[in-house]
Amino acid sequence: MKIHGDVISPFVRMCLVTAHEVGLKDRVQLAAAAVKPGEVNAELAKLSPIGKIPVLETDHHHPIYDSRVIMEYLAHVAGNRAYIPDDGVKRFRVLTLLALAQGIAEAGVGLRYEQAQRPEGAQWPAYADRLRARIAAGLDDMENQWHDVLHGVNAGSVAAACTLGYLDFRHQVLSWRTGRPKLKAFADNFNARDSMKAWPLA
Amino acid sequence: MKIHGDVISPFVRMCLVTAHEVGLKDRVQLAAAAVKPGEVNAELAKLSPIGKIPVLETDHHHPIYDSRVIMEYLAHVAGNRAYIPDDGVKRFRVLTLLALAQGIAEAGVGLRYEQAQRPEGAQWPAYADRLRARIAAGLDDMENQWHDVLHGVNAGSVAAACTLGYLDFRHQVLSWRTGRPKLKAFADNFNARDSMKAWPLA
Repeated sequence: MKIHGDVISPFVRMCLVTAHEVGLKDRVQLAAAAVKPGEVNAELAKLSPIGKIPVLETDHHHPIYDSRVIMEYLAHVAGNRAYIPDDGVKRFRVLTLLALAQGIAEAGVGLRYEQAQRPEGAQWPAYADRLRARIAAGLDDMENQWHDVLHGVNAGSVAAACTLGYLDFRHQVLSWRTGRPKLKAFADNFNARDSMKAWPLA
Repeated sequence: MKIHGDVISPFVRMCLVTAHEVGLKDRVQLAAAAVKPGEVNAELAKLSPIGKIPVLETDHHHPIYDSRVIMEYLAHVAGNRAYIPDDGVKRFRVLTLLALAQGIAEAGVGLRYEQAQRPEGAQWPAYADRLRARIAAGLDDMENQWHDVLHGVNAGSVAAACTLGYLDFRHQVLSWRTGRPKLKAFADNFNARDSMKAWPLA
């Protein structure tokens, strides 16, 4: 299987780390593909008309996207029923943490686009503020409400760790660790896992 | 259960239609909540720090988000195992169509924000073009590759119908039906369902 993308994208990295965690690291390769907000990547568009990364290409060349579907697909291929638990209560807790982490990641990527990709003069400071507020509120919630899920290795905790790694890489100025000791301990611990170290950001 | 949001959002409407299709229409109420890109909705933020609609509030007042998790949760509560099929091949086909439809919907909402919410002068035409290209490519793919899934009533076909309904409502100028006869027939047929008529856009 190939995962098309760039590890700097938190959505790509969470798929690569997932493959490692469910035991498929030797079956998944990264195929380099970059995207920019104002351009079409024609090669990628052949696999996914949405043109976002990641896209997984199966061994039979079928495309599967987006990141959330890929993560579930990898767990399914591996026969791992704990990574996104079958049990209803646990399942929706993991899936909601995954949505929370991806919501923070989307705001982080959106903030990067606003700051670094939009032309000078086409920026909208109120929107950047809104994204920063969304990131801060999401992190506070993660600090306070999610330790039962973050404690394990699952789609939610992997997404959280990759999102925090992205904030470290692109938005150091936000100092997300300040005032969030439990989340800091989670990240320090999770970043030491082989799966995270196999896909470093720098 | 309450679904917080506004039916104009395709993501909210697909959850409301899902509730109807899986047989939960009498157990789900819509609680009005509006969001704007440059403002925090403080009431909504109590339920979801990401502050996007929809958020589902369970009968025990637990928040579940985002739309994709809510759709799966509703099928789970209803005991419906066909709406997002258990079988692997069918499941990932439905989930990928759902991701495709949501990708088009995100581009549509993003285009609306770009055109109607960003202040004059803070717009970026190349980005608006990129969103239009993403919508067009997604619709072409839906026209050509997805009739096996669109033929049924499932998370993918409901998301597709709600996304097309949103394009009718907000982006009529895109004339999405032109050159896409199969998708036009799908929408005309699906829009006649009780679930869609129960949650009209206008």
